[in-house]
Amino acid sequence: MALQSVDLNCDLGEAFGFWRISEATDEELMDLISSANVATGFHAGDPNLMDKVVKGAVERGVAIGAHPGFRDLQGFGRRVIQANPDELVNDIVYQVGALREFARRHGTKLQHVKPHGALYMEAATNAELSERLVDALLKCSPDTALFCMHVSETYRIAKAAGIAVVREFYADRDYSDSGSIVFTRRMRALNPQEVADKCVRACLEGKVRTVEGNDIDIPFESICFHSDTPGAHEIGKAVRAGLVENGIRILPAGELLARAA
Amino acid sequence: MALQSVDLNCDLGEAFGFWRISEATDEELMDLISSANVATGFHAGDPNLMDKVVKGAVERGVAIGAHPGFRDLQGFGRRVIQANPDELVNDIVYQVGALREFARRHGTKLQHVKPHGALYMEAATNAELSERLVDALLKCSPDTALFCMHVSETYRIAKAAGIAVVREFYADRDYSDSGSIVFTRRMRALNPQEVADKCVRACLEGKVRTVEGNDIDIPFESICFHSDTPGAHEIGKAVRAGLVENGIRILPAGELLARAA
Amino acid sequence: MALQSVDLNCDLGEAFGFWRISEATDEELMDLISSANVATGFHAGDPNLMDKVVKGAVERGVAIGAHPGFRDLQGFGRRVIQANPDELVNDIVYQVGALREFARRHGTKLQHVKPHGALYMEAATNAELSERLVDALLKCSPDTALFCMHVSETYRIAKAAGIAVVREFYADRDYSDSGSIVFTRRMRALNPQEVADKCVRACLEGKVRTVEGNDIDIPFESICFHSDTPGAHEIGKAVRAGLVENGIRILPAGELLARAA
Amino acid sequence: MALQSVDLNCDLGEAFGFWRISEATDEELMDLISSANVATGFHAGDPNLMDKVVKGAVERGVAIGAHPGFRDLQGFGRRVIQANPDELVNDIVYQVGALREFARRHGTKLQHVKPHGALYMEAATNAELSERLVDALLKCSPDTALFCMHVSETYRIAKAAGIAVVREFYADRDYSDSGSIVFTRRMRALNPQEVADKCVRACLEGKVRTVEGNDIDIPFESICFHSDTPGAHEIGKAVRAGLVENGIRILPAGELLARAA
Repeated sequence: MALQSVDLNCDLGEAFGFWRISEATDEELMDLISSANVATGFHAGDPNLMDKVVKGAVERGVAIGAHPGFRDLQGFGRRVIQANPDELVNDIVYQVGALREFARRHGTKLQHVKPHGALYMEAATNAELSERLVDALLKCSPDTALFCMHVSETYRIAKAAGIAVVREFYADRDYSDSGSIVFTRRMRALNPQEVADKCVRACLEGKVRTVEGNDIDIPFESICFHSDTPGAHEIGKAVRAGLVENGIRILPAGELLARAA
Repeated sequence: MALQSVDLNCDLGEAFGFWRISEATDEELMDLISSANVATGFHAGDPNLMDKVVKGAVERGVAIGAHPGFRDLQGFGRRVIQANPDELVNDIVYQVGALREFARRHGTKLQHVKPHGALYMEAATNAELSERLVDALLKCSPDTALFCMHVSETYRIAKAAGIAVVREFYADRDYSDSGSIVFTRRMRALNPQEVADKCVRACLEGKVRTVEGNDIDIPFESICFHSDTPGAHEIGKAVRAGLVENGIRILPAGELLARAA
Repeated sequence: MALQSVDLNCDLGEAFGFWRISEATDEELMDLISSANVATGFHAGDPNLMDKVVKGAVERGVAIGAHPGFRDLQGFGRRVIQANPDELVNDIVYQVGALREFARRHGTKLQHVKPHGALYMEAATNAELSERLVDALLKCSPDTALFCMHVSETYRIAKAAGIAVVREFYADRDYSDSGSIVFTRRMRALNPQEVADKCVRACLEGKVRTVEGNDIDIPFESICFHSDTPGAHEIGKAVRAGLVENGIRILPAGELLARAA
Repeated sequence: MALQSVDLNCDLGEAFGFWRISEATDEELMDLISSANVATGFHAGDPNLMDKVVKGAVERGVAIGAHPGFRDLQGFGRRVIQANPDELVNDIVYQVGALREFARRHGTKLQHVKPHGALYMEAATNAELSERLVDALLKCSPDTALFCMHVSETYRIAKAAGIAVVREFYADRDYSDSGSIVFTRRMRALNPQEVADKCVRACLEGKVRTVEGNDIDIPFESICFHSDTPGAHEIGKAVRAGLVENGIRILPAGELLARAA
């Protein structure tokens, strides 16, 4: 069944101090999306930036989520650190709380939590980590949704535990036949129109072509693109335009969940 | 007028990873105090430790507060970084939020915020920093008290803004005639009984002897000692015993404020 | 007396992990200069980048120097940390050694040491810091030159101690009547031709116009421009072209010193 | 054949800023050993401490080596970060150079390099990492020995490349039948006399009892104990006494290699 509404999310605030990683500004990207995943300081993001991004999101009606990562500024959270699940969940709780305080400061709430990079992929296959994470979210913030892939331990466990869960479709990543994305530490350039077409097809048909050349089912509620993908701004504009032209409404995940409930 | 009740606070969780700075354990110290200032990761403290200390405090009925510092693990937050007030307040908001999330996880609330070391001293004399800090607390958490010295811009501004404010008496620091403590980067050993006598006198007479040899008035609601002062455990025990022997109740600052209101 | 030869230096490797601060690439800038100040990890720079920049410099015949800063990635080394001189010199020794090892790996030597940002400015006015630094350089690497301003404690003390010393002229900074540059935490855009004209005049006449509107004498052996100044590549090209057009040779500081000796 | 001389090494300088991990002081331990592995800042150690330890080692005639680890202060270098070999070797080159500069400052040379914790274990089984490391050492410092286990890719590759290599026997770790030590993130307390007896037997008979209960051959030139093992000082004293009582001379690895050559 075709999607009539979808969330469009992007990772924001992934700078640090004076440094930048994305060609596009956070403000440019915020004008395109309905949900912002705000970097929370361990893989990227600093308090000044978090404050600025949350303020900008509130001004634009963009929902915000915490985007915690491994404690690895040099590796941008794209390298696994072999820590135990309790350590990693404590790192996540810390980072989620930090962002939630900026949300309070600017009069909004955290819509969601989405682990970053290698931590997202680690949780996808590590059931113990996903369990501890879901348990922590239940205790800290039962009203905050968890973003993840459909094909993941995170989704299976979050769903079973009854917490709000949002599945993502990755606009700028390749899929394998397993239904998982092919993880990469650095992104290549992409054709914005092809990315948009892929997203529209996923919304209308629920299908995506894999790197092996097959079509697979891909259920989701939110589309993600990355601010550090080369040409991110063009990609975001093309995806947004594609959705609008096909009559698909772009709404924050929290509103989608509220309507579905 | 003699104090009939007083808060007793101590900085806890000031380790990092496998490292320790205090001879006493957090658990030993928590058995003595009514309020814990929990290090929040920038000058000391890591998420695993924050989780552990908050859990231990809840089990013992000890109230918790966030203890944010300068981003300087090597200097333990005892070196000033010449940042502008907005940057510093963003750092504080970040750290306060991180601890608040652990409080949520363990079913409690943040009683207070107390900047650490050089940041506490900087706020004491920097009116702009104190103003921004008070403004942020009003927006993020109007129900959270601010710990500070009586003789400080922080107290003057917090009081004027109408937020809950708790003045501290420093058991293990020297006072100058100005009413301010003499800041130090490393502590010398102290005689526990002398420290206890000084605290009891301050409670009963409202006076303290300065390094210049004079007695000054010293109004306060909470007594502080430091976990990294050599002999901290003995000092804490002596202070507690001294208060109890003199009929002075030890209560969390939040309860004292509620009774006074 | 007009300069017939001058060194042209630029700060390179001031990225960190996946992040960038400069629009220009290190390789573009290396094609313009005779000496590279390589960031050594505390305010910017990581080991991967240091290796890459040193390798690129060797391939182009560009001399290299260590560019140590305050331990402050977030503030990019442009915030003072109030540490004592011994601590700061230990930080410098550490960073200089780290870069020297990459020089060894690529078959070259360190030509010079140049502290970064707030640390450079701190040393300029703090005689004790400059003394400790000069003392450490004498012990660690008596053959390595020290870059500094003519009007600085650093120059006075290094000169008196008899170590090789190179005075800089700042292409992209303003001067005050004191002969010192006006320190800034973020740079504005500049007109490349005006910058080039200012440099050529300084070489030919030994004069610079101050922010107060006066001409002052400005003796130097090296011209510096910053990779994070907006338009750095255009500025570098204009300065190089201006020097060449006026018959001023661009040579590494080490060669200039060897010829003068 | 029984060993007549052996090196005795220990990890030193594994504090950071105001924090400590070991009950024993570096000075107490330096009085017992012939080689010190000095932490170089990524997993532990800061420039002030490196300066102090190198100075103390020189005063006592203790040889020094660089002890580089993963960039992970929180995990004390005992968690693997899944980085590629080039990144890790760049991290090692950086850290080795930093310590070498302190050696220059105090008029000594680096005797050896010994990776720390998880990095040592990673190199032991990762041939590509060991190859890149040996290649870097050949370029940077062909006169510096590499410490490793007999059963390791590191030993095999270093030996084949012809660089000086020193095999270690671990006094305070358990061995498996494979000849490798059983890696641990936190140490339990040990009986000093049993540790000493195990070391003496290894020197005299070349054998060690494994966790599986078998005796295996264990060739080595240096005995290692860890400063963060509980009771490290007592263990070090017992091992030293055991060696002396059995007529085994304790000499820096560099001297052993020079005599053997």
